[in-house]
Amino acid sequence: MSIPFTVTILGSGGALPVQGKNPSSQYIQIGNTGVLIDAGEGVQTQLLKFGISHHKISYVFISHLHGDHYLGLMGLLFSMHLSGRKQDLHIWSHTGLDEIILIQLKHAGSVLSYPVHFHHLVRDQSETILDTENFSVTTLPLKHRIPCSGFLVKEKTGPYRIKKESIPAEMKLQHLVQLKSGTSVFKENGEILYELENHTLPPHPVKSYAYCSDTAPDENIAGLIRGTDLIYHEATFMSSDEKRAAETFHSTAAQAAGIALKANAGRLMIGHISARYKEQSLLLEEAKAVFPETFVASEGMVLDLRRLSD
Amino acid sequence: MSIPFTVTILGSGGALPVQGKNPSSQYIQIGNTGVLIDAGEGVQTQLLKFGISHHKISYVFISHLHGDHYLGLMGLLFSMHLSGRKQDLHIWSHTGLDEIILIQLKHAGSVLSYPVHFHHLVRDQSETILDTENFSVTTLPLKHRIPCSGFLVKEKTGPYRIKKESIPAEMKLQHLVQLKSGTSVFKENGEILYELENHTLPPHPVKSYAYCSDTAPDENIAGLIRGTDLIYHEATFMSSDEKRAAETFHSTAAQAAGIALKANAGRLMIGHISARYKEQSLLLEEAKAVFPETFVASEGMVLDLRRLSD
Repeated sequence: MSIPFTVTILGSGGALPVQGKNPSSQYIQIGNTGVLIDAGEGVQTQLLKFGISHHKISYVFISHLHGDHYLGLMGLLFSMHLSGRKQDLHIWSHTGLDEIILIQLKHAGSVLSYPVHFHHLVRDQSETILDTENFSVTTLPLKHRIPCSGFLVKEKTGPYRIKKESIPAEMKLQHLVQLKSGTSVFKENGEILYELENHTLPPHPVKSYAYCSDTAPDENIAGLIRGTDLIYHEATFMSSDEKRAAETFHSTAAQAAGIALKANAGRLMIGHISARYKEQSLLLEEAKAVFPETFVASEGMVLDLRRLSD
Repeated sequence: MSIPFTVTILGSGGALPVQGKNPSSQYIQIGNTGVLIDAGEGVQTQLLKFGISHHKISYVFISHLHGDHYLGLMGLLFSMHLSGRKQDLHIWSHTGLDEIILIQLKHAGSVLSYPVHFHHLVRDQSETILDTENFSVTTLPLKHRIPCSGFLVKEKTGPYRIKKESIPAEMKLQHLVQLKSGTSVFKENGEILYELENHTLPPHPVKSYAYCSDTAPDENIAGLIRGTDLIYHEATFMSSDEKRAAETFHSTAAQAAGIALKANAGRLMIGHISARYKEQSLLLEEAKAVFPETFVASEGMVLDLRRLSD
């Protein structure tokens, strides 16, 4: 059994609210670990709506300090506190979020019931910021009006998968472990005892997910996320508003698709579509003309990385 | 015609979110002026939902700096900015909100498109903080864990109402103005020309609304809001949890009703009910046993001060 690896869309709207749409936020479940990427206003209500307990969240990654990407975090932190959370919470962001949070705790007269660890992202540089048993998180420098980073979540190669029916009852545990690690077992005289391919299947393929919002189109990003199974890339504007996109350091749907194409991605999910467009299908068509495997993010959508391209 | 005076409930939940309920926020329309009292997370979405343009809001009053009473303000300010607002916005709160807002603007790299004026509330003291042509706003010192104030919104006496059918065509404008101000018109020789009661009806009765959240029960509040037409008073707990209410500087439903009774209020609206109670009707019953004219606030409710007790 491979571990679960799913992305739930909590919000995928643009900067200005539209009724029934929430600002950027995504919940990733990978193994037993919960990861929150961005936390737009209302994120705690969205978690509640989709039946995701905030107790599951261990890591929070905030791409940048524009309100539609982090304003829901403070409410979530307060609710974790009111619910008596004890376990550590790690938060990554560009400089400033710690100051914003600490000042609000001060004026609320609150000392959180759990430890929060703030980590600062580095601007204009890709670095691996989290490395766990099951997955790693690497930053993607994005091009926005203020310091902004995307995130590449990549699982690690799992064990070789034992073919149960092929395992004799007398096999020693140490030999089983050796097979799982991908090595055949030999006798002292050099003869083969258990041959890897007779007793195992190769590990599940490693899956990866890239989150790129907000940003002007940047080919360097494509280089960093080559072969990623699923890319979320902002598509704030249509090509007809490309000038406005450039002025505001955002992308058009076609530009987002261009990045997915260059990255040779499995699938592309677009979002952060400006409230000015009533018909999201037009942006989808524009993107699909460049990269056919595109779809539009919508709230409550659960993307199973195992099933997307298997 | 008297001017409109309505209160729209945007959110009336407690500190912890419950699905489908928003934290504290109310919109008051008085004459042509829009007033926002408290701004819990999601307030801008609630305004959108109930068809209230945020352009109408000129004054914002924040009772205290616990998250469920102000966390939606920053998103609203950003949206006003993105919508190109130009007109001034006045915000009253206890010390700290200006710091919280300015630090977020700094990290977002944003300079708002409109002037914001911050006003600090004074702790433990009632004062009139706004005095317009149509209404005044007076603070109500509340008893909470951190500095907290309620607000009494009181309209001003309008003009004497002219009985149109009684006005002769030859009446001079200055005499009409005099009648409206409540004075009969006399000739130079002292004889009566237009007697007030023949040509006018008395002004519409003055209406008032008091907002009291969050607070432990305090009889001093009742003294400050005597005869108020409608009181909103928090009722976080039931009497069975009175100890917990006291520890957290909140009120029970019965205590809220006790304040309304002492104040000789017209009606009492309770809210901020803890998420622990699934049956709000139990809190309502408890309050009605003390003050029968009680109801529970619910989102989207529009209370017309003219019709409540006319």
